[in-house]
Amino acid sequence: MPKKVLVVGLGGVGVIAAYTLQLNADCEVSAVIKSDYEHVKSNGYELDSCDYGKIDSWRPNHYVKSVKEAVEFGPYDYVVVVVKNIPDVYNVEDIYADAVTKDTVIVLLENGLGIEKPVFKRFPGNIVLSGVSMISSANYSGKVHQNGPDFLTVGYFDNGVVSKELQQEKVDEFVKLYSTPQNKCIVDPDVKFTRWRKLLYNATFNTVCALVNLDVGRVTMFGGIETLIEPAMDEIIAIAKSDGVTLDPSLKHGMIHSDDGHYYAPSMLVDVRKGNQIELQVILGNALDIARENAVAAPILSIIYELLKLVQMRLKEQSGKIVLPKERPL
Amino acid sequence: MPKKVLVVGLGGVGVIAAYTLQLNADCEVSAVIKSDYEHVKSNGYELDSCDYGKIDSWRPNHYVKSVKEAVEFGPYDYVVVVVKNIPDVYNVEDIYADAVTKDTVIVLLENGLGIEKPVFKRFPGNIVLSGVSMISSANYSGKVHQNGPDFLTVGYFDNGVVSKELQQEKVDEFVKLYSTPQNKCIVDPDVKFTRWRKLLYNATFNTVCALVNLDVGRVTMFGGIETLIEPAMDEIIAIAKSDGVTLDPSLKHGMIHSDDGHYYAPSMLVDVRKGNQIELQVILGNALDIARENAVAAPILSIIYELLKLVQMRLKEQSGKIVLPKERPL
Repeated sequence: MPKKVLVVGLGGVGVIAAYTLQLNADCEVSAVIKSDYEHVKSNGYELDSCDYGKIDSWRPNHYVKSVKEAVEFGPYDYVVVVVKNIPDVYNVEDIYADAVTKDTVIVLLENGLGIEKPVFKRFPGNIVLSGVSMISSANYSGKVHQNGPDFLTVGYFDNGVVSKELQQEKVDEFVKLYSTPQNKCIVDPDVKFTRWRKLLYNATFNTVCALVNLDVGRVTMFGGIETLIEPAMDEIIAIAKSDGVTLDPSLKHGMIHSDDGHYYAPSMLVDVRKGNQIELQVILGNALDIARENAVAAPILSIIYELLKLVQMRLKEQSGKIVLPKERPL
Repeated sequence: MPKKVLVVGLGGVGVIAAYTLQLNADCEVSAVIKSDYEHVKSNGYELDSCDYGKIDSWRPNHYVKSVKEAVEFGPYDYVVVVVKNIPDVYNVEDIYADAVTKDTVIVLLENGLGIEKPVFKRFPGNIVLSGVSMISSANYSGKVHQNGPDFLTVGYFDNGVVSKELQQEKVDEFVKLYSTPQNKCIVDPDVKFTRWRKLLYNATFNTVCALVNLDVGRVTMFGGIETLIEPAMDEIIAIAKSDGVTLDPSLKHGMIHSDDGHYYAPSMLVDVRKGNQIELQVILGNALDIARENAVAAPILSIIYELLKLVQMRLKEQSGKIVLPKERPL
């Protein structure tokens, strides 16, 4: 019996994930497709992938418009969540809850820190995996361009209910399901460390770039490393330490130079430029909650957070999610 | 003999200043007009002023394209400087230096703190006045809309060379020249206090609004007062204190509510939206220099300053003042 996998969130990363899993004969892939549904129905996805080459037309085994409709193709062994995680705008767990049974493994292929907490609260006892993805892929209305190779690191968020062995078994199984000769998918022995390490980049470059509307290259060339990025990274290192995670300061150098040679626009900047909501809470807010709990000073990140909260409101107004009175009320 | 006055910088405020002074028979007004020169030559300025009504066509007594050309209508008793003060982009003193003789009184009708220092350095012994303007006026290519009444406060920056009495005499004379039945022009007995007080608003609302691209009303409605504006005002109060100026904390309330009922866009936000350089150094940088000298902590304002320095670079690149290599160099 093939494993039944539901992929929720078919953006650039989600489509590659679904495609990759479906390459495996042991997987039966269902997908929840929102805006591209009609296009996929008529034409399928067109893929231009550095890992898999050009594919004219590809469709998941099953695809539907909503998680409710996806239930009939379950019950699911895995629900892979690739939606943007913006708890201040909507509840991600609400989106896929209908597809989760007591045996479903939930795979969070999302950015940020502390994203497992609401999942454990909502689905106590379920196994929840962390997928930290290094990939560059964008979905332009059904045409998917994958420019950067897929490198996925998978581990488990310890749910404290099921044995570690069983949780690790599911990690190993998912890594096996996801691995192809073209991609790289490895076991993550320390999810907490991996996510803090990724935050070293995301909580600093991603936020500063979004705030000043400049890519990583420009922030660097304009002097922002010394004044903002590196001191902000030191704040992350201090908060991580208070959370029991040691990030060696030498990691900073690699992060600072990871986009050398490119004018790279990180995800939050891309979102701001597109007018989309930003993943502020999971990329920065949750880390600052830990800083506050543990009384760690993080002045730069705290101020950037407060500023980005205002930017988030601007984005909400721009997209019509909130409407202000025409005259400012007294 | 009428007083010879040169106005440099004919934006919304500069045109009203020139018009106001020319109403006085004791003034002969020359103006340096840049982009609107041909329009003014053909049509004159069209004024729609809440103080003076509608004027179809008005021209200064003399108008030229450059300060060099203005020299022939001098020597000037007063040079009124209404150009944007952006020392990181150009030297303001360079712009009007040719029109300054040893007897010229220089009137700085500009934003910010510490703007007199480079003037004293360049023109030691000259009397330098401070004009702090409360006005709402915009120049749309020769069509000037003045929506807010003109309220000008004039005092002297003590140059430490000339007697206080003589400096005050020039203040009194300029106030007399500038006063009309329609406007309000008063003597400022404490220039330093006035400029710090104005900074309470400008260093906080102006900078935060520019950074998050939101007007004062929205920053307020979105919760920015508690998280950013008021704590930043407290930093200004502390820096001012270290500089010998007492700003009563009760001033904050008035500033915070000064734009109630309006979605007001302060000058730096307007500049960012237009793609113009921002007056970052005089509105924030100079105050932070004083904070550093006096070892006053100002974390919020310091971080906002570093972020806005990056925005300033973005604006420079946008306007073509700097050009980056197409490929990011390694």
